[in-house]
Amino acid sequence: MSDAVLVSDLPTPALVVDRPGFLRNVERMTAIRPGPQLRPHVKAFKSTELAQQLADAGHHAFCCATVAEVLGMARAGLDQDLLLANETVDHHRLRAMADLDAPVTVAVDSDTTVDAAADAGISAVLIDVNVGLPRCGCAPDDAGRLADRARRAGLEVRGVMGYEGHVNLIDDRSERRAAVETSMEKLLAAHAEVGGDVVSGGGTMTAELNEWVTELQAGTYVLMDTTFDGHVPFEIAIGVVATVISVDPSGYAVADAGLKSLGMDHGDPTLPDGSVWFCSDEHVTFSGVDVSVGDRVRLLPAHLDPTVAKHDHLWVADGDEVVDQWAVDLRGW
Amino acid sequence: MSDAVLVSDLPTPALVVDRPGFLRNVERMTAIRPGPQLRPHVKAFKSTELAQQLADAGHHAFCCATVAEVLGMARAGLDQDLLLANETVDHHRLRAMADLDAPVTVAVDSDTTVDAAADAGISAVLIDVNVGLPRCGCAPDDAGRLADRARRAGLEVRGVMGYEGHVNLIDDRSERRAAVETSMEKLLAAHAEVGGDVVSGGGTMTAELNEWVTELQAGTYVLMDTTFDGHVPFEIAIGVVATVISVDPSGYAVADAGLKSLGMDHGDPTLPDGSVWFCSDEHVTFSGVDVSVGDRVRLLPAHLDPTVAKHDHLWVADGDEVVDQWAVDLRGW
Repeated sequence: MSDAVLVSDLPTPALVVDRPGFLRNVERMTAIRPGPQLRPHVKAFKSTELAQQLADAGHHAFCCATVAEVLGMARAGLDQDLLLANETVDHHRLRAMADLDAPVTVAVDSDTTVDAAADAGISAVLIDVNVGLPRCGCAPDDAGRLADRARRAGLEVRGVMGYEGHVNLIDDRSERRAAVETSMEKLLAAHAEVGGDVVSGGGTMTAELNEWVTELQAGTYVLMDTTFDGHVPFEIAIGVVATVISVDPSGYAVADAGLKSLGMDHGDPTLPDGSVWFCSDEHVTFSGVDVSVGDRVRLLPAHLDPTVAKHDHLWVADGDEVVDQWAVDLRGW
Repeated sequence: MSDAVLVSDLPTPALVVDRPGFLRNVERMTAIRPGPQLRPHVKAFKSTELAQQLADAGHHAFCCATVAEVLGMARAGLDQDLLLANETVDHHRLRAMADLDAPVTVAVDSDTTVDAAADAGISAVLIDVNVGLPRCGCAPDDAGRLADRARRAGLEVRGVMGYEGHVNLIDDRSERRAAVETSMEKLLAAHAEVGGDVVSGGGTMTAELNEWVTELQAGTYVLMDTTFDGHVPFEIAIGVVATVISVDPSGYAVADAGLKSLGMDHGDPTLPDGSVWFCSDEHVTFSGVDVSVGDRVRLLPAHLDPTVAKHDHLWVADGDEVVDQWAVDLRGW
């Protein structure tokens, strides 16, 4: 008799990592982008224990979307080269990063964000360049001027970053590659004016296509989701396990995972071999799978990042056996 | 000089309650459903400090969607009459509720859930009846049999519950009322077979329409969201305050609240006087409002419940002054 914890015994909803799939994803990405050519994006998984696995695989520079992620990674000692790939004008938060005994680089895209970084004692920046996604980033032809301003303010300008997230919507691979090239031409033009060693960009969807960046910012690849599945050489290694709590004789059933345990911005989760009707706060109604009350089902999230952010921890499993537990310790702001 | 904390100084994204609006919502509901005629649903706000305000307004019976909510409410002493308005077959969780020094009632809708409640030592149940929403709930004509089974197993059967959530989609008020009546005829038919004092159901959208239940299960009314706004006599008293971090000269801007701080299952948040283009994890891109980097904007969530569940606490404000802070202490499962 084993006293192993089994996935089928976990309290639900449970966010479960398939360890063999996770390890294969890490190995595949390390083959495409070894060592410093990858800057894993911790926003996707928000766990320093998972990040440690990526450091063990040779990736020591990390990318964060929030200051809480930067500070948490530093606390965990994963602080060799932390990038806040996002703008902030919050003086207290910038100071908290500047006060770390670790090198932190922040993204800037305006006079105000350059000045806020300098005022708070931040040492290094990347000039964030708009390469086509309407989000942050300066105009490519303003990047040189911002770099000059930053250097005058005493900041080290390490280079540029630009995220081509708008290409993720392009299904055709060669069209997607062409759109990446167009974006990266803008980024390289800006880089020519800015200088520095770093050209940072990309994501899981462009891991194989973006040959222009010196480092790729990717996070989803580690565990994946149904939105990216089929477009990239990584596999879904995550699921929300739920318990069936009600079965209706007319042909549908209800399990105890709903929109509070699943990121819903990309739509409903997928139930393999079944059909999801809708999610409520703590319920999913589905059909097409023959189940009884007490049975387990495994839902595949449509969007990894916000799904993980709704959970305290990741259960790590090999088959039905739980082999590890990783805290989701980088939530909040 | 005041040393008051101001909303405009809060770290962002910040979930902010408009206290005057909240108090008006509580007062309006108390006029419609005084005292025990309302069983506030804590899933909407997940805060025992907010729940205490409702107890102070005369509502002492509460409704929960998760066992974590039940246990948290009991820890806070708000344990006069707690209902888990949801099914579970988790023996450990049922035992944790049974072991409370407080009366807990749980919903059951099948032989399995009846037996699980009895086995764990739960003392009282409501028979959950399907009144038209394809989620939990037994067939109305099976309710009497389940009640008999529950009583034979030693459970007190307090009555029935049935949620007519499917009527929320009906815009026309008189059509919605007719649909509520159809649903409640099913619930009352079941109640005639089940017995007990309680007929529980409804929600914010049917607060004024459902004249058949002895107690209404409503939570959204306290703070509201854009989905329910305009359909019920309550006002939006919640917002996610964000800081503008980037302004593009072509006419859009970006603020630091995204899909990790907003419930997205009902769609994008609303920016009054502006237009939301899309949300990313930690960004919202919008246009139509003249802003500079560092300015604040206030986003109105499309769905209250999952928005609150993404935050640690609610800042309570009167105008720009922060007057209180309520922990969101009922998250998780």
